[in-house]
Amino acid sequence: MPDFEIVREKLDQAVGVLAEKDIDLWLTFVRETSQVRDPCLDLLLGLGLTWQSALVISRRTQSVRSGERIAIVGRFDADNVERTGGYTTVVGYDQSIREPLLEHLARLDPRQVALNFSESDPAADGLTHGMFRLLVQTLDGTPYADRIVSAEGLIGALRGRKSPAEVSRIRSAVQAAEAIFHRVGQLIRPGLTEREIAHLFHDLALEEGLELAWEAGHCPTVAAGPDSAVGHAMPGDCVVQRGHLLQTDFGVRKDGFVSDLQRTWYLLDDGETGPPAEVVAGWEAARSALEAGRAALRPGARGWEVDQAARETLIRAGYPEYMHAFGHHVGRSAHDGATVLGPRWERYGASVDGVIEAGNVFAIELGVRVPERGYIGCEEDVLVTPQGAEYLSEPQVTLWCYPPAG
Amino acid sequence: MPDFEIVREKLDQAVGVLAEKDIDLWLTFVRETSQVRDPCLDLLLGLGLTWQSALVISRRTQSVRSGERIAIVGRFDADNVERTGGYTTVVGYDQSIREPLLEHLARLDPRQVALNFSESDPAADGLTHGMFRLLVQTLDGTPYADRIVSAEGLIGALRGRKSPAEVSRIRSAVQAAEAIFHRVGQLIRPGLTEREIAHLFHDLALEEGLELAWEAGHCPTVAAGPDSAVGHAMPGDCVVQRGHLLQTDFGVRKDGFVSDLQRTWYLLDDGETGPPAEVVAGWEAARSALEAGRAALRPGARGWEVDQAARETLIRAGYPEYMHAFGHHVGRSAHDGATVLGPRWERYGASVDGVIEAGNVFAIELGVRVPERGYIGCEEDVLVTPQGAEYLSEPQVTLWCYPPAG
Repeated sequence: MPDFEIVREKLDQAVGVLAEKDIDLWLTFVRETSQVRDPCLDLLLGLGLTWQSALVISRRTQSVRSGERIAIVGRFDADNVERTGGYTTVVGYDQSIREPLLEHLARLDPRQVALNFSESDPAADGLTHGMFRLLVQTLDGTPYADRIVSAEGLIGALRGRKSPAEVSRIRSAVQAAEAIFHRVGQLIRPGLTEREIAHLFHDLALEEGLELAWEAGHCPTVAAGPDSAVGHAMPGDCVVQRGHLLQTDFGVRKDGFVSDLQRTWYLLDDGETGPPAEVVAGWEAARSALEAGRAALRPGARGWEVDQAARETLIRAGYPEYMHAFGHHVGRSAHDGATVLGPRWERYGASVDGVIEAGNVFAIELGVRVPERGYIGCEEDVLVTPQGAEYLSEPQVTLWCYPPAG
Repeated sequence: MPDFEIVREKLDQAVGVLAEKDIDLWLTFVRETSQVRDPCLDLLLGLGLTWQSALVISRRTQSVRSGERIAIVGRFDADNVERTGGYTTVVGYDQSIREPLLEHLARLDPRQVALNFSESDPAADGLTHGMFRLLVQTLDGTPYADRIVSAEGLIGALRGRKSPAEVSRIRSAVQAAEAIFHRVGQLIRPGLTEREIAHLFHDLALEEGLELAWEAGHCPTVAAGPDSAVGHAMPGDCVVQRGHLLQTDFGVRKDGFVSDLQRTWYLLDDGETGPPAEVVAGWEAARSALEAGRAALRPGARGWEVDQAARETLIRAGYPEYMHAFGHHVGRSAHDGATVLGPRWERYGASVDGVIEAGNVFAIELGVRVPERGYIGCEEDVLVTPQGAEYLSEPQVTLWCYPPAG
């Protein structure tokens, strides 16, 4: 069942962020959210909506010190919205949203109407283009169409600053994933295919009543040996072999929040007591680069600066740069929007210029390929505090070997 | 695991629909689909995508008779897209989608670029406003920004015309829901709350390994007696009582397709051998109106005409009109977009002007309130054939009573 306490906490936080960003009004405009779901709906409501619906949050004023939160929704959704206890006004309409929406806008007369669109942040881009057009038509003849601004800064701050309750849920999702990694470690053996390894993860998650953090087809990804595709690839027919690496990327969703981790094993060859020198060197380079990035991950840093610290460390160690971003927010989703810890490549747009804040939770990750052995991936989940980035996960500090030592 | 055969079938169908609608090119433009998921992605790919991605479908030409299907996706997603076997070209990029996208557009030089936005059809409105802006910037300096059109007609046809494989999956989801309704019927008794009844449905679905067709908070909805809210309301504390009606709205998802049905019980009072006259009259009026709507549901009819047939029958029988649409497409989603069988109210926009086609699958529904007894809801799932609308469900033709007869 939806957890309305965490929704009310976030609505309170939203009113504060509006004041901080000097924005008068934030309008989330959705419909049929079982078809297209604005990611802000989880923050602001925790429920789906059917007909055209407006969630209006107005900043604190002298007369309304708590800020107004107005939900204008179809009649059949109104009761559910009431029950969240998060809205100061709930309007249930029958035929058209136009009248109640325009009435409340005219009354609040905001200088800005912030909408959920963003070129750089997918989590702040839940307004569809059709709904945008519909809203502009609805506002025709009012001064408000010209006052539309992007809510991306607002959403990024709200989503990115995790409350203690949110951090505790993420920590719990991290621990649940770690327990599964450890159990998988006891079950792997040469001869299994990537697909069979993926099924081990799925079975264990099911057994624990946990959802996967992202789509089952590539949660986990599994890369066995040098011939496997790495990234978001679906586990295939490659077979786990002695003398090869086995890399996995996996997370679970628990109470609405997720974890995202990578763990890597090396399968000892006959006569080996530890991984060969080039594998150890690759591991050390990856770990050092991850730590360099983590050291740079502090309040006030920009996304690209954190990526640069990790990327340059890896290149200086003589390895090719990784072809992805160093880190991304983790929260309700494994790619939780807002600031990306990535390079200044076109596809990351402005997302890498964002500033790190205390309370942010990131997955940080990178890897190196070792010829003829496979891929080494390091990924940990960390919480940014005023003092720096703390591990939420128990970091993998050495390669895990098969068979386990001892 | 994703079912790529059904995706390939839909891609073939898409090429035909492009020719029929005289549109040169259809572009689905998405990113981070775990955050916001364009509903077309299930039709066209069956997988999520991470970086900015373009699925380009080009109509059949003399040189390319099968139509081109080009996927331009982030490098780490390319392998998965290849494996679907649905795309004639898969491009995996590293830094920016711009170059490969513009290259293919220039080569195909389409007269129209159809995008996924719609003011009236949520299932055809998966393009976010931020992605629209990004695309317009990307197309700057080319002739293609001025050739943008809505893909809503295209998507409505493609989504609405169910293939035999799709119909068979929906039928199977209908049967699975019916089995659960029957088992619930054996478990209901006076004294249970709406919430407890909802849990019965959830437990039975879980036992059968079925997902719910929509959000658990209101799948099922349960309305016990005259004091309960009806619609999308979450089941509450109202208690099932003798002499009252019990109405439920429920569906399951099976192999990616859903069912959506309502079933209504009457709880016999002491000494009663059947429902009282006013309850029977309400049931008959509701059933007759449903049948009148079903009779009007034929290829060539417009959505509002079908609604009107049902609505006027109910009004003529002396009952108030229902405050919702008579019907909606059912498929991958319980509200599957495109033509709505609804009245010409502003909030339905142009969706009720759509024309019914053979191969469409609809949930048709309406209800009446009986004072002091509760709510009667009828909802069935039907397939439109050239001869008219056939039941996919085994229709509820009489009220179900507690205790069951016999």
